[in-house]
Amino acid sequence: MAVLFKDVLAVDGDMQRGRFCSVRVEDGRISAVADKLAALPGDEVVEGRRRMALIPGFVNAHTHAAMCLLRGIGEEAPLKEWLEDKIWPAEARLTPEYIHWGTKAALLEMAANGTTAFADMYFEMDGVVKAALEAGVRCAACRGIVGDDEGKLREGIQLAETWRDHRDMVSVQLGPHAPYTVPPAAMRKICEAAAKRSLGVHFHFLEAEWELSYLRDELKMSVGEYLESSGLLDVPYAILAHCVWLDPEVVGAADFSRITIAHNPNSNLKLGSGVMDLTGLAARTGKIALGTDGAASNNRLDMWGEMRCAALLHKGIQKDPTALSARDALRMATYEGAAGLGFEKNGLLREGWAADLVLVDLDGPHYLGIDEDNAALFIVYAGSSADVRGTMVAGRWVYRDGQFPRLDRDEIIERAAGIRADLLS
Amino acid sequence: MAVLFKDVLAVDGDMQRGRFCSVRVEDGRISAVADKLAALPGDEVVEGRRRMALIPGFVNAHTHAAMCLLRGIGEEAPLKEWLEDKIWPAEARLTPEYIHWGTKAALLEMAANGTTAFADMYFEMDGVVKAALEAGVRCAACRGIVGDDEGKLREGIQLAETWRDHRDMVSVQLGPHAPYTVPPAAMRKICEAAAKRSLGVHFHFLEAEWELSYLRDELKMSVGEYLESSGLLDVPYAILAHCVWLDPEVVGAADFSRITIAHNPNSNLKLGSGVMDLTGLAARTGKIALGTDGAASNNRLDMWGEMRCAALLHKGIQKDPTALSARDALRMATYEGAAGLGFEKNGLLREGWAADLVLVDLDGPHYLGIDEDNAALFIVYAGSSADVRGTMVAGRWVYRDGQFPRLDRDEIIERAAGIRADLLS
Repeated sequence: MAVLFKDVLAVDGDMQRGRFCSVRVEDGRISAVADKLAALPGDEVVEGRRRMALIPGFVNAHTHAAMCLLRGIGEEAPLKEWLEDKIWPAEARLTPEYIHWGTKAALLEMAANGTTAFADMYFEMDGVVKAALEAGVRCAACRGIVGDDEGKLREGIQLAETWRDHRDMVSVQLGPHAPYTVPPAAMRKICEAAAKRSLGVHFHFLEAEWELSYLRDELKMSVGEYLESSGLLDVPYAILAHCVWLDPEVVGAADFSRITIAHNPNSNLKLGSGVMDLTGLAARTGKIALGTDGAASNNRLDMWGEMRCAALLHKGIQKDPTALSARDALRMATYEGAAGLGFEKNGLLREGWAADLVLVDLDGPHYLGIDEDNAALFIVYAGSSADVRGTMVAGRWVYRDGQFPRLDRDEIIERAAGIRADLLS
Repeated sequence: MAVLFKDVLAVDGDMQRGRFCSVRVEDGRISAVADKLAALPGDEVVEGRRRMALIPGFVNAHTHAAMCLLRGIGEEAPLKEWLEDKIWPAEARLTPEYIHWGTKAALLEMAANGTTAFADMYFEMDGVVKAALEAGVRCAACRGIVGDDEGKLREGIQLAETWRDHRDMVSVQLGPHAPYTVPPAAMRKICEAAAKRSLGVHFHFLEAEWELSYLRDELKMSVGEYLESSGLLDVPYAILAHCVWLDPEVVGAADFSRITIAHNPNSNLKLGSGVMDLTGLAARTGKIALGTDGAASNNRLDMWGEMRCAALLHKGIQKDPTALSARDALRMATYEGAAGLGFEKNGLLREGWAADLVLVDLDGPHYLGIDEDNAALFIVYAGSSADVRGTMVAGRWVYRDGQFPRLDRDEIIERAAGIRADLLS
């Protein structure tokens, strides 16, 4: 199916300014970007009339999608109590079927707000991948590994085998949970397995302050020594989620060229973890993406919210209104996530790049005054998920004007509601 | 007109938990809240079917509405450059007509996201009040006063005279801009004028850190001495906007019983002003409301965003997931604002209180699992302005299902676009 977007305001995280233009999509990719393009027979034509923006799809670089089933459980409790008394008992009742349907419920939410790819760390991951493929949304999947559990590692490796032929839509990482839940020897083994199989790794790192003391007091290592000895720096690519307590000096001293930091500002705030030193880290690595984390600790799976929060939060913390530009925030929410998750030529509006796109309605009063010069600023500071009129992945609509062409919305909500009731019963 | 909300999930910032119930509205007020209420002849019936929430209307406790005409101008520049090179030259071209239409454009945005009252500090305020009355939204208006300008003070006093008979919909404050723009003698004169006429005062206070040195080095006063000598503590009521650098000890030492602090978290972050010590201040005063500030420094006039930002930000800064509860955030966004602006019996869902209400669609997947126990948590952490299906002020719809019964949306957007073009030409 070919789609022609006529007279839209195109803007991505790399363009110095937006551009009123037309964009053609063919065979899942952007085939042309030009001032004017005429429709061909068979084209679906989207009339932008200079009142629609076209931006790259959002990439949620760290989440646990099926946790939307647990949203609002045990709120406003300290982390340990929240996990041990509320989340873990409910999670213990999750089945493969429950996770599949929970992921679908999350996909309704994500597709509607413009998310075209997400990195998911959870369990029963085949059901997660199947849900993503049904929805038509790209997925970076990893089986979370806790402890020295060979079975879970095998599951992770098997996941990569199973979905090897879907690489355009599915990337697989090995998923050691965190330094404090995976012993150093097991971590090394996982990283070696990843390196041997050319797999990435997805990992929680320094989310809470006490993890620093854990490394120092329990493992007797500096952060840099841990990264070095764990083998994390040697895998083909890695996604390090959170990094709230990662000292920029460590990034400057180690080789972070294959590592993407997944910044989750709203979740870090809500759980009281703190605020990542984004400007300090960004001075050492350009590879910073954005994620929502799970809906049990955010509670929105909405990348617009992460993009805006990141853009505002670090200005306030640094007391510098220039700390993170809107254009950089847009790039983090799109291109950096796609690259970090292993999806190539994705996240910028360029010929030959993936047609993972969001159609944004500029008709609301809050877009009054948007033009080519300030396009990214309006999208990041004034926009929200409420403006999304269409979400396209690989040239196919996954959301359009309130409808989900590939998902049965009512069935998903009904099933998810039943599962939720069972989990809490 | 009587309206019956049937089977809605009612929740406000005072209720320990939400309540599935029915709510009747008559003569601008809530006349009944009960488990079941039957429709009477002539009732407009809103069928909630337990899939709609009813919450109090949001009160934007500090904004400059017509600045929506200047949204996105001079972004990401240091404050001084932003004001002097971009904002002030554009503001110099504003006419009474421009401000009237700019305010209407802001009212489209605010009414659609559930805002039922707003505190506006700007100039040519009669046009602001007229716009608010046309829209049917309550307004706390003050003429901003800079310098020792008797004319502006007279304008402020005249504003109160002009709208004296609309007290139900319009409250008027005197509006000395800030300590650094209004000399101490003029400030005292303004506060005396307010006290004499039983008027409130609306004031920018300690938004930026350098204001502390200004008080200390230029005025040779501590913050407490300034408040005392200015007369601000003696006016009938006052709204102090920002207070980013207000030490809680000062609040503990002075009489803040007639003062409401208007917290503007997103604007304070975006301009790099810093983060207000909400938990410290809240330990000394319960009177903290929320505001958006103007759209040139936020850039959304969306109280859902302020409520969520406040609820998350202070948890992160304090490293305490219990720092600000969802219920308290909801109370700050509704009741505390209404009370602070001088609107009585407004902001809670109680019989006899104002029917300033927001109808919230709970049908989206992000509300899966909402119930009476967690109602406020879902609204604050998972909800957004996209869920608003109706906004009612004094029992009359100002927004309903995408329509503005009292405003001509297309005309306003066209006029505002023309004004914007002229301002930047």
